[in-house]
Amino acid sequence: MERIIFDCDPGHDDAVALAMAKGLSEYFKLEAVIATYGNQIREKTLTNTLNLAQALNLDVPVYAGSVAPLIRERVVAGNIHGENGLAGPVFPECRLKCAGNGITYALDTVINNPGEITFVSVGPFTDLAVCLKADPRFAPSLKRIIVMGGSTCGGNVTSTAEFNVYADPEAAQIVFNSGVEIVQFGLDVTLQVMLSEEILEKVRASKETNYKSIFLASMEYYVKSCKEFIHDYPAMHDPCTIAYLADPTIFKFIETDVEVDLKSTLHYGATVDLRESINKNVKKAIKADIKKFWDLFFKALEKLP
Amino acid sequence: MERIIFDCDPGHDDAVALAMAKGLSEYFKLEAVIATYGNQIREKTLTNTLNLAQALNLDVPVYAGSVAPLIRERVVAGNIHGENGLAGPVFPECRLKCAGNGITYALDTVINNPGEITFVSVGPFTDLAVCLKADPRFAPSLKRIIVMGGSTCGGNVTSTAEFNVYADPEAAQIVFNSGVEIVQFGLDVTLQVMLSEEILEKVRASKETNYKSIFLASMEYYVKSCKEFIHDYPAMHDPCTIAYLADPTIFKFIETDVEVDLKSTLHYGATVDLRESINKNVKKAIKADIKKFWDLFFKALEKLP
Amino acid sequence: MERIIFDCDPGHDDAVALAMAKGLSEYFKLEAVIATYGNQIREKTLTNTLNLAQALNLDVPVYAGSVAPLIRERVVAGNIHGENGLAGPVFPECRLKCAGNGITYALDTVINNPGEITFVSVGPFTDLAVCLKADPRFAPSLKRIIVMGGSTCGGNVTSTAEFNVYADPEAAQIVFNSGVEIVQFGLDVTLQVMLSEEILEKVRASKETNYKSIFLASMEYYVKSCKEFIHDYPAMHDPCTIAYLADPTIFKFIETDVEVDLKSTLHYGATVDLRESINKNVKKAIKADIKKFWDLFFKALEKLP
Amino acid sequence: MERIIFDCDPGHDDAVALAMAKGLSEYFKLEAVIATYGNQIREKTLTNTLNLAQALNLDVPVYAGSVAPLIRERVVAGNIHGENGLAGPVFPECRLKCAGNGITYALDTVINNPGEITFVSVGPFTDLAVCLKADPRFAPSLKRIIVMGGSTCGGNVTSTAEFNVYADPEAAQIVFNSGVEIVQFGLDVTLQVMLSEEILEKVRASKETNYKSIFLASMEYYVKSCKEFIHDYPAMHDPCTIAYLADPTIFKFIETDVEVDLKSTLHYGATVDLRESINKNVKKAIKADIKKFWDLFFKALEKLP
Repeated sequence: MERIIFDCDPGHDDAVALAMAKGLSEYFKLEAVIATYGNQIREKTLTNTLNLAQALNLDVPVYAGSVAPLIRERVVAGNIHGENGLAGPVFPECRLKCAGNGITYALDTVINNPGEITFVSVGPFTDLAVCLKADPRFAPSLKRIIVMGGSTCGGNVTSTAEFNVYADPEAAQIVFNSGVEIVQFGLDVTLQVMLSEEILEKVRASKETNYKSIFLASMEYYVKSCKEFIHDYPAMHDPCTIAYLADPTIFKFIETDVEVDLKSTLHYGATVDLRESINKNVKKAIKADIKKFWDLFFKALEKLP
Repeated sequence: MERIIFDCDPGHDDAVALAMAKGLSEYFKLEAVIATYGNQIREKTLTNTLNLAQALNLDVPVYAGSVAPLIRERVVAGNIHGENGLAGPVFPECRLKCAGNGITYALDTVINNPGEITFVSVGPFTDLAVCLKADPRFAPSLKRIIVMGGSTCGGNVTSTAEFNVYADPEAAQIVFNSGVEIVQFGLDVTLQVMLSEEILEKVRASKETNYKSIFLASMEYYVKSCKEFIHDYPAMHDPCTIAYLADPTIFKFIETDVEVDLKSTLHYGATVDLRESINKNVKKAIKADIKKFWDLFFKALEKLP
Repeated sequence: MERIIFDCDPGHDDAVALAMAKGLSEYFKLEAVIATYGNQIREKTLTNTLNLAQALNLDVPVYAGSVAPLIRERVVAGNIHGENGLAGPVFPECRLKCAGNGITYALDTVINNPGEITFVSVGPFTDLAVCLKADPRFAPSLKRIIVMGGSTCGGNVTSTAEFNVYADPEAAQIVFNSGVEIVQFGLDVTLQVMLSEEILEKVRASKETNYKSIFLASMEYYVKSCKEFIHDYPAMHDPCTIAYLADPTIFKFIETDVEVDLKSTLHYGATVDLRESINKNVKKAIKADIKKFWDLFFKALEKLP
Repeated sequence: MERIIFDCDPGHDDAVALAMAKGLSEYFKLEAVIATYGNQIREKTLTNTLNLAQALNLDVPVYAGSVAPLIRERVVAGNIHGENGLAGPVFPECRLKCAGNGITYALDTVINNPGEITFVSVGPFTDLAVCLKADPRFAPSLKRIIVMGGSTCGGNVTSTAEFNVYADPEAAQIVFNSGVEIVQFGLDVTLQVMLSEEILEKVRASKETNYKSIFLASMEYYVKSCKEFIHDYPAMHDPCTIAYLADPTIFKFIETDVEVDLKSTLHYGATVDLRESINKNVKKAIKADIKKFWDLFFKALEKLP
């Protein structure tokens, strides 16, 4: 089974991805979770990750990732995800502890298990970029990289840039040009996978579990802030990566050359699909089968504590 | 009636726009045409404009516009419009002569007829930008500006930039920030107005005229090069401006802040609609009524010699 | 004799240059003065120019130049040159009137006198850039261009940029790449020509004239603001161009390729001498004979009313 | 005694610095050397470092650093330092082996010896930047950083950029903004410390040692390539850092805000001293006592095998 290091910054949709990772554990082996800064500062996303790991009985170590981007000043998404990064649900006291530095963990694990590990990144790309640069053996030892980030249909943090890339554009450019096999889920596809009142009703009608109440409290907040700032229901950005691992047929792909704009002001952090490039560095998802996605979600839901 | 200075770089779709300007002359008064570099060098676009003016019996002076962009190196679109800029039709010897420098003509005419003149620009924005900068009275004397240029749905010359803006991005930025009322037809809307085999058939079945044979020879070339380089039928970019002057109800608009990227490499010459800006400098067409457009085209066709 | 159009933005050192232009009129023929925005807004620099023309009995028409740069927002140098752009001297009521638009004047004069006219620019490069772009005949009709602007030894408005180029970097880039013969006086040389207490004493000891009192009132203010903001005596930037016209042997030159940085933030408006370029577009002054300069200044002073 | 990790890319002046580090070992404790790409690819600079370590009896581990910059394409200085990066001397077969990955070594050593270790970087800044980003404990655990790199007096690889910063500008910007105490030796000061025929004569007259022959063979090549490409004798760039550690009174310093230009084309990799910034992130050497420097060099020379 594909062995996964999952790097996230919960974050409401990150939390759904973690839950799906637990519920769909028959399809891949989650090795560890790294919490990076992103939707909030690292202290808060780490707390959120530990709380989720406990609530979900994840049973894998949680590591601490980066605290800031490579070069730009740090931006967070407090307007969307709230002051603590995962506003809505209330968690009991957490018994879990951080297992250490995520970057040295990832370096050791990947280099010592060549061809075995897939790095899934659903927050800013800093952790992955630093690993790629810290040891030249890291890139060729990875099985592949799966990321949520980028857009060629307008941005969600500026007019042109998607948040995960905008949060550390230089790191994203390092990742996209690492030579490793990359599967990309950008806004072009994740905005197709929207939460809806219908889905929420179906969750409300499902059996009572601890996770169900966390999900509903969490989505109540997420729906409200998305309606206020984005004028729409929230998209299931990060869960696309997990759904893809469980069932690759959900998505249609193109091969393309993704590059990040590091020079512009108006387009800083925007990604471009370079049309006529022959350097096809990314397998980019462009179409989602919405029904299959939600079927997988509900399949996962049933298995959660 | 609105008095029009029409600045163009024929160019196959420019030629259609000129023909529609003649055929729809009941709706506005064409004062003069300026030929600028763009789809080809100025020497060639000027020849094409004079040939068209003679063939269409335009009966307005044709002036010579700019020969090069403000700052960047000149690019032309020879791959699409051919070696002479309007490949396909063959014109008889031209009896018309260039009436002089288009920029000093436009400066004089606009400043001496305050509030009367609308400047329609369907090539690179250089001529208009130079006029705006040559005399501070020019901008407040204009009635309004109507342009074909820009895109927020990907480019047609690079992955991100539309040709007319890319050909002189600095000039476009001057125009968009001139403070004059601007109506913009970018790729977002012009790509909705595609030529089709059905339209071509309908033209072929229409009464025999001199212009009909020019149009068909011209479109035969244009269709072929668009299929080769753009993988699609050609769009009626420039004619959108003329159709709008004849019937503004063809298009739906939003108010937006259009800015041109002058700093980037990947996005040089790309336009951005700045979402949260309160400086709404442009009325941007976003939707075309295709049927109404072609009805106008055929109405114009009937009147042409 | 070389016929000169002098484009300036007085400005304390511009005023000295105008005075030297009058006093050294045996060496060249001043045709007209254009006042552009720069050290202050155009309304103020035009007033200052008219006042100086009257005080100096210049007896040439004064035209109105640009009011703003091509693309960037306007910056002025009020901290150095004061609220009115020429703080210090008090002028009587002015009987002179602006002769009209400087750009159309320069276009007509240069194009109708091919090979005759030298354009001297000691403010932002906007007027000259617009002329170069408004008519392709302008550049080949010019005799040559003499400019004050640029630096490769650090800036005087930012850490890296000289004021005249920084005020309109895009215009400067147009001028430097116009193909016309260009003589450049940048900070590399003008900072060698510093006012001193010794020079001021020598002026104070000279015969009483109307101009002497204007000069001393003007320099009193200029010295004070330079000491406050630049921590040094003022440099005679703009007068270098006039001194050069009267006696080219004052300066030593290199041939170099001057380019303006339009993309950077840290270096926006900084000029670079591209070392290995073979496109030597500029004759750049690098060394001044200080004694010869001041000898010329005092020679001019004696002739002034 | 200050404990030093020395990161270099030999390179002829790097080799002199290593020799001085050995000869001046009474002043500080060299803990390890890391060889990074730079003057040549990492494979070659590592070989050169091992050869030098053996020849000098360095007796410290030699680690392998980065193989490429963070984001830009790799450039090397083969024109100056030759095909193998240290052309000239011939070394016997090397018995020393690389001790492992320099970045994980530096992370462990610095974090486990808080306040003890000074990182001296005389090649591209990649290794140091990656360490700073790989663990947030690294920066506060460092004693200080000493670097050779940057210039505000023109470049040595482009018209505006110094080689070590130009080789990885993004990494340099990370280092300069790390919050760690930084001492900078840029071209402003290192170009004052030029090799001369007089110095070479003095070395030739000194006692015969293994190192003397290496030095002379090495400088013969270095002098020749510098005369060809830089039109001057070579500067002792990297040795300035070691001389400073042995005798800080050799240099005069200013406190300044050093920033790297990452956006420009003309100034990519150029450093700026931001004049009016209050963020004084760097202690920058501006003046060298040449006599003291060479006295230290000859003191070191006497102690070398």
